[in-house]
Amino acid sequence: MSDITSTGEKRLLVASGRAHPQLAIDVAAALGTDLLPTDARTFANGELYVRYDDSVRGADVFVIQSHTAPINEWLMEQLIMVDALKRASAKRITVVAPFYPYARQDKKGRGREPISARLVADLFKAAGADRIMSVDLHAAQIQGFFDGPVDHLFAMPVLLAHMRTELDPSMLTVVSPDMGRVRVADIWSDKLGVPLAIIHKRRDPLVPNQVSVHEIVGDVSGRVCLLVDDLIDTGRTIVAASEALKKAGALSVVVAATHAVFSDPATEILQSDFIDSVVVTDTLPLPVEKRFDKLTILPIAPLIARAIHEVFEDGSVTSMFDGDA
Amino acid sequence: MSDITSTGEKRLLVASGRAHPQLAIDVAAALGTDLLPTDARTFANGELYVRYDDSVRGADVFVIQSHTAPINEWLMEQLIMVDALKRASAKRITVVAPFYPYARQDKKGRGREPISARLVADLFKAAGADRIMSVDLHAAQIQGFFDGPVDHLFAMPVLLAHMRTELDPSMLTVVSPDMGRVRVADIWSDKLGVPLAIIHKRRDPLVPNQVSVHEIVGDVSGRVCLLVDDLIDTGRTIVAASEALKKAGALSVVVAATHAVFSDPATEILQSDFIDSVVVTDTLPLPVEKRFDKLTILPIAPLIARAIHEVFEDGSVTSMFDGDA
Amino acid sequence: MSDITSTGEKRLLVASGRAHPQLAIDVAAALGTDLLPTDARTFANGELYVRYDDSVRGADVFVIQSHTAPINEWLMEQLIMVDALKRASAKRITVVAPFYPYARQDKKGRGREPISARLVADLFKAAGADRIMSVDLHAAQIQGFFDGPVDHLFAMPVLLAHMRTELDPSMLTVVSPDMGRVRVADIWSDKLGVPLAIIHKRRDPLVPNQVSVHEIVGDVSGRVCLLVDDLIDTGRTIVAASEALKKAGALSVVVAATHAVFSDPATEILQSDFIDSVVVTDTLPLPVEKRFDKLTILPIAPLIARAIHEVFEDGSVTSMFDGDA
Amino acid sequence: MSDITSTGEKRLLVASGRAHPQLAIDVAAALGTDLLPTDARTFANGELYVRYDDSVRGADVFVIQSHTAPINEWLMEQLIMVDALKRASAKRITVVAPFYPYARQDKKGRGREPISARLVADLFKAAGADRIMSVDLHAAQIQGFFDGPVDHLFAMPVLLAHMRTELDPSMLTVVSPDMGRVRVADIWSDKLGVPLAIIHKRRDPLVPNQVSVHEIVGDVSGRVCLLVDDLIDTGRTIVAASEALKKAGALSVVVAATHAVFSDPATEILQSDFIDSVVVTDTLPLPVEKRFDKLTILPIAPLIARAIHEVFEDGSVTSMFDGDA
Amino acid sequence: MSDITSTGEKRLLVASGRAHPQLAIDVAAALGTDLLPTDARTFANGELYVRYDDSVRGADVFVIQSHTAPINEWLMEQLIMVDALKRASAKRITVVAPFYPYARQDKKGRGREPISARLVADLFKAAGADRIMSVDLHAAQIQGFFDGPVDHLFAMPVLLAHMRTELDPSMLTVVSPDMGRVRVADIWSDKLGVPLAIIHKRRDPLVPNQVSVHEIVGDVSGRVCLLVDDLIDTGRTIVAASEALKKAGALSVVVAATHAVFSDPATEILQSDFIDSVVVTDTLPLPVEKRFDKLTILPIAPLIARAIHEVFEDGSVTSMFDGDA
Amino acid sequence: MSDITSTGEKRLLVASGRAHPQLAIDVAAALGTDLLPTDARTFANGELYVRYDDSVRGADVFVIQSHTAPINEWLMEQLIMVDALKRASAKRITVVAPFYPYARQDKKGRGREPISARLVADLFKAAGADRIMSVDLHAAQIQGFFDGPVDHLFAMPVLLAHMRTELDPSMLTVVSPDMGRVRVADIWSDKLGVPLAIIHKRRDPLVPNQVSVHEIVGDVSGRVCLLVDDLIDTGRTIVAASEALKKAGALSVVVAATHAVFSDPATEILQSDFIDSVVVTDTLPLPVEKRFDKLTILPIAPLIARAIHEVFEDGSVTSMFDGDA
Repeated sequence: MSDITSTGEKRLLVASGRAHPQLAIDVAAALGTDLLPTDARTFANGELYVRYDDSVRGADVFVIQSHTAPINEWLMEQLIMVDALKRASAKRITVVAPFYPYARQDKKGRGREPISARLVADLFKAAGADRIMSVDLHAAQIQGFFDGPVDHLFAMPVLLAHMRTELDPSMLTVVSPDMGRVRVADIWSDKLGVPLAIIHKRRDPLVPNQVSVHEIVGDVSGRVCLLVDDLIDTGRTIVAASEALKKAGALSVVVAATHAVFSDPATEILQSDFIDSVVVTDTLPLPVEKRFDKLTILPIAPLIARAIHEVFEDGSVTSMFDGDA
Repeated sequence: MSDITSTGEKRLLVASGRAHPQLAIDVAAALGTDLLPTDARTFANGELYVRYDDSVRGADVFVIQSHTAPINEWLMEQLIMVDALKRASAKRITVVAPFYPYARQDKKGRGREPISARLVADLFKAAGADRIMSVDLHAAQIQGFFDGPVDHLFAMPVLLAHMRTELDPSMLTVVSPDMGRVRVADIWSDKLGVPLAIIHKRRDPLVPNQVSVHEIVGDVSGRVCLLVDDLIDTGRTIVAASEALKKAGALSVVVAATHAVFSDPATEILQSDFIDSVVVTDTLPLPVEKRFDKLTILPIAPLIARAIHEVFEDGSVTSMFDGDA
Repeated sequence: MSDITSTGEKRLLVASGRAHPQLAIDVAAALGTDLLPTDARTFANGELYVRYDDSVRGADVFVIQSHTAPINEWLMEQLIMVDALKRASAKRITVVAPFYPYARQDKKGRGREPISARLVADLFKAAGADRIMSVDLHAAQIQGFFDGPVDHLFAMPVLLAHMRTELDPSMLTVVSPDMGRVRVADIWSDKLGVPLAIIHKRRDPLVPNQVSVHEIVGDVSGRVCLLVDDLIDTGRTIVAASEALKKAGALSVVVAATHAVFSDPATEILQSDFIDSVVVTDTLPLPVEKRFDKLTILPIAPLIARAIHEVFEDGSVTSMFDGDA
Repeated sequence: MSDITSTGEKRLLVASGRAHPQLAIDVAAALGTDLLPTDARTFANGELYVRYDDSVRGADVFVIQSHTAPINEWLMEQLIMVDALKRASAKRITVVAPFYPYARQDKKGRGREPISARLVADLFKAAGADRIMSVDLHAAQIQGFFDGPVDHLFAMPVLLAHMRTELDPSMLTVVSPDMGRVRVADIWSDKLGVPLAIIHKRRDPLVPNQVSVHEIVGDVSGRVCLLVDDLIDTGRTIVAASEALKKAGALSVVVAATHAVFSDPATEILQSDFIDSVVVTDTLPLPVEKRFDKLTILPIAPLIARAIHEVFEDGSVTSMFDGDA
Repeated sequence: MSDITSTGEKRLLVASGRAHPQLAIDVAAALGTDLLPTDARTFANGELYVRYDDSVRGADVFVIQSHTAPINEWLMEQLIMVDALKRASAKRITVVAPFYPYARQDKKGRGREPISARLVADLFKAAGADRIMSVDLHAAQIQGFFDGPVDHLFAMPVLLAHMRTELDPSMLTVVSPDMGRVRVADIWSDKLGVPLAIIHKRRDPLVPNQVSVHEIVGDVSGRVCLLVDDLIDTGRTIVAASEALKKAGALSVVVAATHAVFSDPATEILQSDFIDSVVVTDTLPLPVEKRFDKLTILPIAPLIARAIHEVFEDGSVTSMFDGDA
Repeated sequence: MSDITSTGEKRLLVASGRAHPQLAIDVAAALGTDLLPTDARTFANGELYVRYDDSVRGADVFVIQSHTAPINEWLMEQLIMVDALKRASAKRITVVAPFYPYARQDKKGRGREPISARLVADLFKAAGADRIMSVDLHAAQIQGFFDGPVDHLFAMPVLLAHMRTELDPSMLTVVSPDMGRVRVADIWSDKLGVPLAIIHKRRDPLVPNQVSVHEIVGDVSGRVCLLVDDLIDTGRTIVAASEALKKAGALSVVVAATHAVFSDPATEILQSDFIDSVVVTDTLPLPVEKRFDKLTILPIAPLIARAIHEVFEDGSVTSMFDGDA
């Protein structure tokens, strides 16, 4: 029999949903390629449609979507994109969700609640995703919700590099905005070699009806406080924490977070005098009207591009964070 | 051993998403019960949350959602509702989607398209749905997209009963608005015992660049034309068809459709003089601003309630349509 | 560590069931290879047995079977072939079913019916098929029955090329044999730039008990009628349609169909005087005794071979039909 | 909320394929019920169609099919029956396959073979079967091929009861027809309390080219030999064994087997003078032309009916065989 | 047709592995029943064997196993028990794992680690478990690792009731032994209405090479410290924390934990003078040699029995914790 | 678009559990590579932990574990290793289990038993194994328990080669130790061209209460008896068989088996005078204290290494056994 053989050359493709095109363009540019030409549309009744203009057959495709509002729309678009890739014979499909949708609904706090973060993993699987790539999951356990590889990237090196050039360690104290985020703050404190403080929000025993006070555990007077969190949603927790810090004598308050969700009234209240500067990454799109003077946006595309490169080339994503995180 | 046994009494629960509460209330009322008390909320960043206030353990639950715009929002809400039921030990979960979402994307018209109607079936399955109930699927093959029972209900008996009291058969001609819906029109013509006409939209060979003409196949002059379709989205096809009928001498044009999607500019253009009346069901919510004088809305709740009753009592849904459809 | 690596060369293999060996031989020849040597047998009690004589490890295998009578036998043989490939470590298995079995049972027309076309997709999946390739599916929605890529090929370019050389467009009218196939006829009419006619089979109101009349919609008098369908089974519909056309003054009737099922009494009645010529492809085997003078059989192997080539080389199957279909 | 509840009464239904209707009728009669009215048809091209005339919603359905030739036809019919039940909301579906199809292809004897017995289990699962019931599996390991409960019934009590009334134990020797069935013969010998002999088929070292001799291990001279096997296919092994026994001085040879496959030339050669009587059950249909004077057919329906009763009533199938097998 | 029907009475069965029979006996007693008679054995080479002596057909079975050392043995035994139940037609199988095995490996802390807690959920699913019941999961997200209902019970009401009778709230301070358990300690502090303190383990900047100091955040001098954790493994963390508390002036140290893993040298070091009493539940067996004077063991069986009762009777497990936890 | 492509080079990795490191080292050496550096640990409470030190991304990994006591420990370790590989993006994972665990529990001998050999296959699948490689499965049907490729290797060529150099065929008789292993002995007898004898263990009719006698079928007096089995567990069957052979006049008894399970008291009793030598392979580890003078251990690593090589290079494992087995 005359054998027909072919060198199994691999091909990398980057596709993007419509939620945050700039991020996908930046990732593709960092990789030295262009985005897969895609025709995406919303029909009159709100149903979405996606079609790829070029063949994806046999390709290793990374589908980038940024889960900003309207978040269900963008989630559905990404699911449809994955379905179309599966049916078009893509070889491997990696969902790139820099900000994992529904990450905060990661357990049943009470009976008869959903575990929507698990549901999202199941939906990606059902659509045909082979792998997931995400940045700074709200809970690391979400990796275990997906039955397959999850590349969990850390934005900390990006944020750390910035802080190291901007802030004087000798003046610095890392602050956790509440009990739930202490572990992350602990790592920051360790990496920067600076002290840690914690804000403990609890009921005021003197005042009835759920009035809460912000108790500061640790020394912040005369310190530059670096308030760290994985995400800023409405900003209320951060602003309240900053106020408490300033009232406790903090010299200045710098806020660092990976995901700038910035739901209303975040942009408005983050401009409070209690906060001196806010540093985030662009895992989520920040339109001009959501930006303000004290805000610094660090690009996340280089990190994602490097991870995609390692995944495609069978390199090591783990090694990207050796030493630093 | 002292055996512990219990009579396996079944319990019926009806839960509703937030898209079209009135329909769910009507269904529950027709069944003689109330809706399952549910706490549903939308968070600041658009993520949804659902929790049931009462136990659903061991119950036979029907989750009603009407897939109107914003359709992806309501689809996601229903998926989350199903996930919460699954994790709360509901015994059987039936998704009631009177208007099946993404039904028109039921095949790959071209390469690299999704088959979103199948994707939706997969998402329901992934979330934990055991069964689906829907009304007048755009293509009957969608039943085959779900790996489990699909109760496919027909609104035709509801619409037929109305037409029989309102229209004089001797004057009537059933009209299909295009080639794709001829089979449904054929059934109408058969049920009513009246002639059939078809509108054939095709390119005008005399005029270049995709100008299309509406050719009427069959006799409509001096006839009351009953234009039938499964859904009305923007209304453009229906209005163009009505215009063609009137220009061809139709006495009057009555439009009948199951699903009143009514995306813009449907409400505006359906009030055209070419159309004398429009009859739909309330599978989708029609807010006051989308209603107009010539519009008649027939209630679909009795049909759905009867089907739920048959499913719950292990009766026969098929027999509901014997004789009539 | 001394790494052991290997170039991941891909290998293409074509295997064939016993239903229509000539088609598989033609496909292999068109690809420039031979069929995978296979030992297939039927045991005394009707059980089938298949074994491959050469290693299939790591290969990209296409399993061709033509679903002619005895159709369940050949379906089972193909399932067994897929199982043997899966267990022998083939890398990817594509079921090539030029005529998709049970395609006409694609929905529940009534309650308590199977959806056998979906069942067939599930059986292929259960056996281990990764992909399906088929020609002119009876309903395009069948693509959505399989949870994976389906390469849907169109025979129209093959049939069109033949018709263009054989028939004079100025004399031609495309005819749909019934309401259900109008959409396909419409495409033909468009591609050839000729008029369309439709045959409407309906009950004769003047004669009781289901006697049906064939009403012709459109002008066929003095025309060469090209009657198009996806398949010819017993031929009864086609012959009745041809008779109606001739009686309505058609100059001649040419029948074009992709799949020549030719169940009895097709061969006998297709030789009727009402029909002037029949053109089909060889997706199904046509033994000598089923052939007749007016029958032209066009080879489908080049189309399938080209599609296999594109799939194997990660090319584009979609592009094969650009421009023409 | 006014709760809607219902007593969860269970309903038993017995459906039958067309392979061996008498067996199903006998089973239903033994249970005191009728078969589910079913419309089963074979279309012109060999495709099968099944529809149930009554509702099966919520029922516990047992689908009986006897896998005789054309075996793939009947297997496919049973799969279609299961699919229709699944889609019609049957609560639980048990495949009753008295003679498990493809049981002898239960392992890969050589590389690149299928394991068709596992494939069959996968096909039943894919179609929607929840459980399997079968009689005397060729290899007990087949139970492990299905991911769910398998009720493995033994025909031995039926055959034993017959033998005990017909044969004198003091004269009896149980004989295994080859090395592969020794374990079953051993159980027979134990149950009857009589000696065991074995026939060892091996190459004759004195004659080249695979001529085999039948060596008898154990004493058979002057004995009534009870030759036991799970099935008789072409009968060649049994007849050769009987000849060897008679030549070794056996007084008479009685053959007992559960499954009378009786492929050609079984009926002809089993009438050989070397065999005095043949006793089988009716797990497979035996048309008049396959029956002969020395043949006794024992009814298997009572055993199957009792097992179905135990399964339906949550009794114990295991206890049916206590004491006896 | 004469219908065969049956009242669908449910039957509750409690089966137990061999790890902690007393707990299972207590649960059964609390339910008013006996354990399912089971034959469990370990073969010479360490393989396990389980068989049930009574029919389990159609029953609602709860399989209790306590995951103490040798933990993999007991996990495998439980998986085998589930497999046997599935194949014996149990209707519903609930794995009761009071101490969820591998709960601490709930995420990838570094690259190329397993997520064994998810793996365990997958193994239970693969064996045939429909549901899981567990007490005080190390991370609540583990609920999301299982694709089905998880009844997450809380031992806090049991421990709280004890503490309320034993300790004077006015003297009490709740202490978290490290940063990772702060959230649980916070709930305790809230429930008891007493202050919270935290022990922060961190590197001593003055001493090189990972020497850590225990920093106490909050006021413990002169207080009765209630040190709370979900589990005590080797006891080292707890003893070090107790030492730090005592050195910081704590009046006494009471330790409360749900799961008494008590790996060596727990029993030895927990008798340290730094600790005044230890209160645990018996989710895990504590043989006499692991018990000591200061240890109080509270029974968990009433809690589990009540939950099983609610699950079996379709009551509400959630309501068990209303008001209290 | 500037395409990013990469040659899809494959990489082979061999990982090993801790049960039998020498075997894995030998396999790696025979392949010309080293074992994947792995950090495996057992925590205080018996939970296992595994982490790979090098990237496994995209690699073709073979995970070797030898299922000796404590067998559940090693099974769980292998499952955890597979889970870690799956989550670290290994391309293909082959479980190498030279001695398949729980192989003897391959069917339900009685009701309510597990089929643990199938369960093990399901657990490997659930963890993420794509393929299984094993040596001399206790029952060949176990191949059908796994839904994927199983490379079933035969140790017979290794054992045969040894026997051919050590023993004189003219003196040799192959003996099956019981009825259940006759088929394997038959193959040995055929390969060596020597006579076959069988030991039939049955109840002694003269002595009540289950006393069994060992009846020898065939001529062993004055012969060198080669007693063959797939495994030796406690050795009791083998020793009893050897005693019977010697008492029947056997010149000497040589025992050959693939798997040396050697549970107590195997090592002690195999040194019996009835046995002259024992030949096994090292599929299972044999610590010094389990070895004895008459024992010969043949290396199985070359066979496994060659099979891994064939699998990795898409060669043929089947061809390894052509001619010889």
